[in-house]
Amino acid sequence: MKIAFLGPQASFTQLACSQIFPSEELVPQSSILDCFNAVKNGDAEKAVVPLENSIEGTVSMTLDYLYQFDEISIQSEVIMPISHHLMIHPENENFEKIISHPQALAQTFHFRVNKYGNIPTQDFSSTSASAKLVAENPEEKIAAIANHYAAKLYGLKIIDENIQDFEQNHTRFIVISRENEALQLNFKKTSEKTSLLITLPEDHAGGLHQVLSVFAWRKMNLSKIESRTLKTGLGNYFFYINVEGNWENILYKNSLEELKSIGAEVRFAGHYSEYELEG
Amino acid sequence: MKIAFLGPQASFTQLACSQIFPSEELVPQSSILDCFNAVKNGDAEKAVVPLENSIEGTVSMTLDYLYQFDEISIQSEVIMPISHHLMIHPENENFEKIISHPQALAQTFHFRVNKYGNIPTQDFSSTSASAKLVAENPEEKIAAIANHYAAKLYGLKIIDENIQDFEQNHTRFIVISRENEALQLNFKKTSEKTSLLITLPEDHAGGLHQVLSVFAWRKMNLSKIESRTLKTGLGNYFFYINVEGNWENILYKNSLEELKSIGAEVRFAGHYSEYELEG
Repeated sequence: MKIAFLGPQASFTQLACSQIFPSEELVPQSSILDCFNAVKNGDAEKAVVPLENSIEGTVSMTLDYLYQFDEISIQSEVIMPISHHLMIHPENENFEKIISHPQALAQTFHFRVNKYGNIPTQDFSSTSASAKLVAENPEEKIAAIANHYAAKLYGLKIIDENIQDFEQNHTRFIVISRENEALQLNFKKTSEKTSLLITLPEDHAGGLHQVLSVFAWRKMNLSKIESRTLKTGLGNYFFYINVEGNWENILYKNSLEELKSIGAEVRFAGHYSEYELEG
Repeated sequence: MKIAFLGPQASFTQLACSQIFPSEELVPQSSILDCFNAVKNGDAEKAVVPLENSIEGTVSMTLDYLYQFDEISIQSEVIMPISHHLMIHPENENFEKIISHPQALAQTFHFRVNKYGNIPTQDFSSTSASAKLVAENPEEKIAAIANHYAAKLYGLKIIDENIQDFEQNHTRFIVISRENEALQLNFKKTSEKTSLLITLPEDHAGGLHQVLSVFAWRKMNLSKIESRTLKTGLGNYFFYINVEGNWENILYKNSLEELKSIGAEVRFAGHYSEYELEG
């Protein structure tokens, strides 16, 4: 089975993807849009894309594509801690410059200044591209900040582990597919949820409140809500909503019917579980 | 007056920043966090950061920092169209490779394939870094995709204008400051809004619905709502809400009092206007 993922090789998305699908063929893509297209066209059966990841992509783009690609559903969500490591070529012992993705440099700012002072940095398009450059240039005294998968792939030596300034640095990925059954994974299950994309009949005051009433009086909890502008013009919105809990509950079916009866367009984007991965 | 902005030089954020503050000293920063810190520490009086921009940063990070830096408010929001141009060194006439930020490459995919077929591409950390490389290497046959500001700054020749696949590619920036008065700008004003960061007393079903009721029965329209996980642990959320309209309305003051009376923590993040910039 082919699984598309947001690359390049050794991206954090690949780190998640290789844990979710350890025995499948993983195919890197150069953008989130390419991942959606690969699934749509049948070039891949599933794809793993960031739902929330400051280094590799934005929740907003993924939500917009979920809205645009109505044949694609979410089968699973995984949360993975982001760990950064400082690595050098094994033939070297020191370095005079640190290279990485700008967000990885930002997320390790205090560590870098405290331990290495004012060593110059240079931005790269990805953490793994910076690791690759270090591997290919043993004559240059440079260090990269990347994940342990990149260190292994490019044969680099990790000299400082877990150098991120905040411990609680998590990132979320979703598995998308043309199938819409939940994917059961062998990781710690943290919740069950249903994702809905809801468009209001018109942009009127209280419209969203009316939609949320459908869930509130049934005591169905919403774990996420996000408004996104429709590309058709300013002022038109869709809402991405996650409803918590067991979707076999009769309340779920009834709430969908009630939403339609008040004129909202509802697109079902998946019933699935959320899991916690190791970093 | 010093204005920090998310760099590097010739980023889309600088393009917006230079229109908003044509006569001030603009100081590039390497991350959104650095922009917030520059304002907090008084190194800059204001900063311009992306609120929604797939190329330079994510709404999520900016919202998280607005929550963490409670001394900082929004003074203005600007919407700017994103236009990509293909540019080469003026001494060259053709090219064998196209370089740019991965999102800019993705956003010009159809144009590139239709006009130039299978010409190889290479990822860069920013569109302007790719333009700079083209400027510094006239002997190499490469083209960059970047904005017109980068073409001007680095003396490049634009050979294809407005090559983005979708016309409606807008991006949003906010002006942040330790002051909280709205900044009046000489651009087309598209709306007035108030941004609130609301934390619920506990994560209970219907809590958000209760908060929205405060605005709904007063017929106050919400133009944006986004839930964000608090870094203190999974399952705790804050909500970023934009309320439309004139903030001198008595309803606004009353709704804030009512929110507090139901146990919600409310942080005011600015009363301000939204403007449309040219690209």
